[in-house]
Amino acid sequence: MKDSFKRVILYARQHRANEDVNECLYRLADWLKANQYETVVDIETANSFDLKLPVLTREQMGEKGDLVIVVGGDGSLLSAARMAVDVDVPVIGVNRGRLGFLTDINPKHMEEELEGVFAGQYTEEERFLLHAVIHDEQDVYFNNNALNDVVLSRGESNHLIEFDVIINHQLVASFRSDGMILATPTGSTAYALSAGGPIMHPRLDAMVLVPMFSHSLSSRPLVVDGNSKIEFRISERNEHHLRISCDGHESKMVKPGQTVTIEKNHKKLRLLHPGGYHYYERLRVKLGWESRLKG
Amino acid sequence: MKDSFKRVILYARQHRANEDVNECLYRLADWLKANQYETVVDIETANSFDLKLPVLTREQMGEKGDLVIVVGGDGSLLSAARMAVDVDVPVIGVNRGRLGFLTDINPKHMEEELEGVFAGQYTEEERFLLHAVIHDEQDVYFNNNALNDVVLSRGESNHLIEFDVIINHQLVASFRSDGMILATPTGSTAYALSAGGPIMHPRLDAMVLVPMFSHSLSSRPLVVDGNSKIEFRISERNEHHLRISCDGHESKMVKPGQTVTIEKNHKKLRLLHPGGYHYYERLRVKLGWESRLKG
Amino acid sequence: MKDSFKRVILYARQHRANEDVNECLYRLADWLKANQYETVVDIETANSFDLKLPVLTREQMGEKGDLVIVVGGDGSLLSAARMAVDVDVPVIGVNRGRLGFLTDINPKHMEEELEGVFAGQYTEEERFLLHAVIHDEQDVYFNNNALNDVVLSRGESNHLIEFDVIINHQLVASFRSDGMILATPTGSTAYALSAGGPIMHPRLDAMVLVPMFSHSLSSRPLVVDGNSKIEFRISERNEHHLRISCDGHESKMVKPGQTVTIEKNHKKLRLLHPGGYHYYERLRVKLGWESRLKG
Amino acid sequence: MKDSFKRVILYARQHRANEDVNECLYRLADWLKANQYETVVDIETANSFDLKLPVLTREQMGEKGDLVIVVGGDGSLLSAARMAVDVDVPVIGVNRGRLGFLTDINPKHMEEELEGVFAGQYTEEERFLLHAVIHDEQDVYFNNNALNDVVLSRGESNHLIEFDVIINHQLVASFRSDGMILATPTGSTAYALSAGGPIMHPRLDAMVLVPMFSHSLSSRPLVVDGNSKIEFRISERNEHHLRISCDGHESKMVKPGQTVTIEKNHKKLRLLHPGGYHYYERLRVKLGWESRLKG
Repeated sequence: MKDSFKRVILYARQHRANEDVNECLYRLADWLKANQYETVVDIETANSFDLKLPVLTREQMGEKGDLVIVVGGDGSLLSAARMAVDVDVPVIGVNRGRLGFLTDINPKHMEEELEGVFAGQYTEEERFLLHAVIHDEQDVYFNNNALNDVVLSRGESNHLIEFDVIINHQLVASFRSDGMILATPTGSTAYALSAGGPIMHPRLDAMVLVPMFSHSLSSRPLVVDGNSKIEFRISERNEHHLRISCDGHESKMVKPGQTVTIEKNHKKLRLLHPGGYHYYERLRVKLGWESRLKG
Repeated sequence: MKDSFKRVILYARQHRANEDVNECLYRLADWLKANQYETVVDIETANSFDLKLPVLTREQMGEKGDLVIVVGGDGSLLSAARMAVDVDVPVIGVNRGRLGFLTDINPKHMEEELEGVFAGQYTEEERFLLHAVIHDEQDVYFNNNALNDVVLSRGESNHLIEFDVIINHQLVASFRSDGMILATPTGSTAYALSAGGPIMHPRLDAMVLVPMFSHSLSSRPLVVDGNSKIEFRISERNEHHLRISCDGHESKMVKPGQTVTIEKNHKKLRLLHPGGYHYYERLRVKLGWESRLKG
Repeated sequence: MKDSFKRVILYARQHRANEDVNECLYRLADWLKANQYETVVDIETANSFDLKLPVLTREQMGEKGDLVIVVGGDGSLLSAARMAVDVDVPVIGVNRGRLGFLTDINPKHMEEELEGVFAGQYTEEERFLLHAVIHDEQDVYFNNNALNDVVLSRGESNHLIEFDVIINHQLVASFRSDGMILATPTGSTAYALSAGGPIMHPRLDAMVLVPMFSHSLSSRPLVVDGNSKIEFRISERNEHHLRISCDGHESKMVKPGQTVTIEKNHKKLRLLHPGGYHYYERLRVKLGWESRLKG
Repeated sequence: MKDSFKRVILYARQHRANEDVNECLYRLADWLKANQYETVVDIETANSFDLKLPVLTREQMGEKGDLVIVVGGDGSLLSAARMAVDVDVPVIGVNRGRLGFLTDINPKHMEEELEGVFAGQYTEEERFLLHAVIHDEQDVYFNNNALNDVVLSRGESNHLIEFDVIINHQLVASFRSDGMILATPTGSTAYALSAGGPIMHPRLDAMVLVPMFSHSLSSRPLVVDGNSKIEFRISERNEHHLRISCDGHESKMVKPGQTVTIEKNHKKLRLLHPGGYHYYERLRVKLGWESRLKG
């Protein structure tokens, strides 16, 4: 801290009562105070947790060597990421959730690992976000960022939905399916994976389109360059509104005739990993490959 | 031709008696002669077909504005590609095979399409090849190029085979499976696709590892940067020799304890497409997506 | 007709304006009249189409050697089937839809094919239906039949849903996923197929559970005996109502804490195929395997 | 034992040096002797292990209330099963291998569990086997049983292989692929699972065809009735001999023009489970679903 960062911004979300998050967050606040690190709390976090710490508005973030520490699961880190990318502040996560591809720090060794991070023992990785815009020829109706994925799904419809996928102004195909996932490398180990998409190394400059239950048996995940411009043109034949979700949280209905245009955000997330982090080791543990190594 | 290319090199392979290839090749030779294009024949092709044309050794290729025209299926074009990449001569294919992701020209309109190509109506695409080397700490036992894929398979073994996959000196995982496919974007629509791999756009600088029937249920295709160094370290625990194949043709046994190291070849294939070629349109037709557009 | 059936019941559904259905239905009515077959129209069909034919209530069906002829796609036949199974009347379909695994008769040869059917040139196949009940310990909230499938899906929820699957009073597993499909052999070539389920021969006495995008990577389709009792116990942890759909049409919200119990209906659908019907031939055509035979 | 069985037949295979199997087998023999159970050893097992016990030929098996106890993995139990089914002797397994869907007894509690079995605390399950015959119109070249699966694979060929699949005298499809797996419910959690097949409940009277990497993208597992007659007709167009394997062990080359006919064996394996065995619980543990229940 003395060297690497000047101020810590605490971030957590209150999703159902989660004693683990509470315990860990208060322990972290106490430890930071005891060690005289300047510590503040994000304004939304302050509304949910009574941390007795100065509150920072989003406008004030990034003014001096800030570090966002997220306590929670990957869902919390996704939220923090969409915030932090706008103010160019790096983010690190303490894992209190289920899977944890993004939140690296084990709460059991939180203090030691953070001490290392403050002493400069970390690696900083750039992760790109997608920027999705719902629009028609007249207007823009929604725009949001996604670190993991943008998902077009049925929304109110009980039927298969119809849409064209256009990449760099070229028609890829007309789909009639349950929907479509567009994922970043970061998101390739999240929802896209359970839909049959490939794993993409985080440093790959690419995105993947994964059809959801496509009616066409030969539909397959399609990996394209990270600088591609992707459009979902929603067919007028759909009788209901469909849904667009960013990272499974920020969602908006999209009407027949509208278009969703998605491109890489020019701002990048600065994601920190504590010393000793190895991507493939993480993958092995999370996907249960480790047992193969031992068994 | 007058402008674009100075000499045509004919290339075909004799695989079983294929009347379609014969008919098309002789028709092409006649048409080139009638139109006074300088035409020669590749030396291996000359051994199989009686074309009454000057024969060119591989050393003589590339001396003057050459173009290789392949008559056959994707398998023939793969062979021609591994040859042409060494002498930096562009390649175009007349499709007389089954699928044809690489051989663009429809034999029915061969003459018109080639006239267009000679008049400069074509696009040139760079496709990268993999270079695979079988070695141990002492020696090198095999090295070859692959435009589509390098496949590690059971070979003589009746059991699952064991090997480690290392990327850029980091262990990805230890596998116990039927084998592993490493495919280029070009090869992503070939064998890797039938093994469950994603489609990768030809211009993507990436390669994909596709496990074959992995014993671990969570094994998934893994897409990594095209500049990665991949190693398959063959476990000493295998009781038999395994097999390495390049593009399903050039194959070699590999022994327990040996390593297969695969990297991008620094030379690229120059693949020509006639005017009017669109990748996604080709994909739609070949994968049967077109019916969706109409139906 | 003279021999096989005494009365024809016409059935069609008006889903969007579909000229093909209209044309075919009126042509069929005219032809039946011209050939002096006794012809009536189902009451719901009469509301949508002006056929100038006697209307039959559902109570009157099955009184004398009736045959239901459906004009439309598989969706229309599914509706007719749920109706016909209660009155034990056989059903045959004229295909005016997209896929047509159930509607056998090609409208181009409708007259000849029906003449054959009336003359006894048909095979009758029994297809079983599922019967789904939403209930808790006090009450029953919904019950319906499904020829293809019963699907538990997210409904109003934007998150993964949680439920236990119980078979014959034994816990199979607790799922956290997008939902679950339970399909009959008839339904195995419909929605379940696009979710990765196996094809099951129509005469197999079995049903298949197909997890939708399960969070657990090793989740796989599970085929069990057709006489199994399946329960989906909806976890109290879900914050929203989920949805149960029968054949993708009849749907109902289901609340956390409720249970969906599904068993084979003891009544069977009597599905007729015209002479010359072969299941595997149909499969080859519909799934595009035929091209393999020719190519 | 006093009640349930009159004699124990010990069975194990020597595959590589496996100290675990040795230790467990000798411990079992000592315990049986100390408890005065009549114990003999299978003749092949006697050749590999020095057990100082009377040797039983296969002709002598089944003479009096015999029980085969297998020490090893599923591979060993598969071998014992193919033997035991001919002499109608029940089989139970002590698990010293990797996965263990068939070998139920944990070696740590071997003595207590076997005591329970001898006292009648077990359930007996019938598992059917496949019987495969390689033949042409003149002769039979091979016949063998399989508890898990019969697999047609490339054998000596480096290319895709061509064959027709016929079920009950009807052509299903012509395949051009890496091969085909035909699995029983017992085998559905073995090789067929890693090739994308569904799980089938052990009591289901069905078998599943799972295409290996089929060239046709829409190829899917096909589940058919357990009494079906399956034929693989090997096309004359194959240039090399293909391979047929039963349970991954007994294998034989098959020539272009020959046919492999596979039907249910009329003899069943009598597989014993110790008290407290639950199929779905086993499935959850083996496939890693248990973590879902806890996590």
